[in-house]
Amino acid sequence: MTGAPQPADRLSRQLDFLLELDKAKTVLRRSYITDGSRNENDAEHMWHLALFVLVLAEHADEPVDIGRVLKMVLVHDIVEIDAGDTYIYDEVGKATQAGREATAADRLYGLLPPDQGAELRAIWEEFEARVTPESRFAAAVDRLQPLLANLATDGRTWREHGTTADQVRAINSKIGMGSSTLWERAGRLLDEAVADGRLAPPPQEG
Amino acid sequence: MTGAPQPADRLSRQLDFLLELDKAKTVLRRSYITDGSRNENDAEHMWHLALFVLVLAEHADEPVDIGRVLKMVLVHDIVEIDAGDTYIYDEVGKATQAGREATAADRLYGLLPPDQGAELRAIWEEFEARVTPESRFAAAVDRLQPLLANLATDGRTWREHGTTADQVRAINSKIGMGSSTLWERAGRLLDEAVADGRLAPPPQEG
Repeated sequence: MTGAPQPADRLSRQLDFLLELDKAKTVLRRSYITDGSRNENDAEHMWHLALFVLVLAEHADEPVDIGRVLKMVLVHDIVEIDAGDTYIYDEVGKATQAGREATAADRLYGLLPPDQGAELRAIWEEFEARVTPESRFAAAVDRLQPLLANLATDGRTWREHGTTADQVRAINSKIGMGSSTLWERAGRLLDEAVADGRLAPPPQEG
Repeated sequence: MTGAPQPADRLSRQLDFLLELDKAKTVLRRSYITDGSRNENDAEHMWHLALFVLVLAEHADEPVDIGRVLKMVLVHDIVEIDAGDTYIYDEVGKATQAGREATAADRLYGLLPPDQGAELRAIWEEFEARVTPESRFAAAVDRLQPLLANLATDGRTWREHGTTADQVRAINSKIGMGSSTLWERAGRLLDEAVADGRLAPPPQEG
């Protein structure tokens, strides 16, 4: 019991990190859960994406390591505990997003033992860089899930933010970078949503 | 466009299942999220467990296939969409739990294409049976996560349900079936909670 204080032991650091992650349950996204009662939070969004990966991986255009895609979607929004959620159509917020999220990653992954912090941070950075088949497929389901939630809630988030079909198609075209099958289906569902009024058509030119 | 209606195509069945899973976000558990603002729901619980698996797998007593443990924790409470959450100390509810959950599994996994429904259901049944190293470790983190949440909220769920230290130790001893390291740590944390009043001691015999 003499000398300098011991650094936190490995298991303590792991448990501290896991307890800190609880805060993802209070980071609200723009999407609603499908019963319309409230906004979705990051923790449940990450779980839902993991199930999208398990069920839809066969539709990836390139072969993917499912375990790695799973890890990617399970950590991809952890940085929002500090950086907050940036709405995908918010061009101002997006300008500062990368810097805010890097600072958040320093703190959050820094809670872990260094080897584990480096490994999980590398998985998040791979997701952000979108250069591997795994990250392209992860990005595809990350777009598809809120799109389906929006369709199931009569386009509520789009309406609240004045988002029109051309914007939705441009942003969600990333689905096609990971899966042409899922993007073909999403395109058809968006056409139906424009036809029945859940999604506003592009502003008229002129 | 003639003849009998076509069965739902494979992708439609997959998307129907994934949309149905959204309901896990409204199944409330007895535990609170660590800021104490509300109960935790099943979707965010399953996400949190997946992170427990990623970070703590090195403490499993037997070698485990991490990908399989991940799948297990990601699906383990899906049946509660229909069957509801059964509090771990509720002996009456536990008597009917298996039957209610089997019926729920029939319906929910039945939404998927048969090959996928069978595969995910088998993973859930493996979790329930607790005979593989993967299922024992999944069960260990399934106990550890709410225990830590309870400790972080001053023992709130235990107090609300009159749960005492002997009951908590008996139920959570399953942690030790998967990881002696995690059970040793949990035991120490429970001792501290009894000492500082977050957890009531066993009723005095007399």
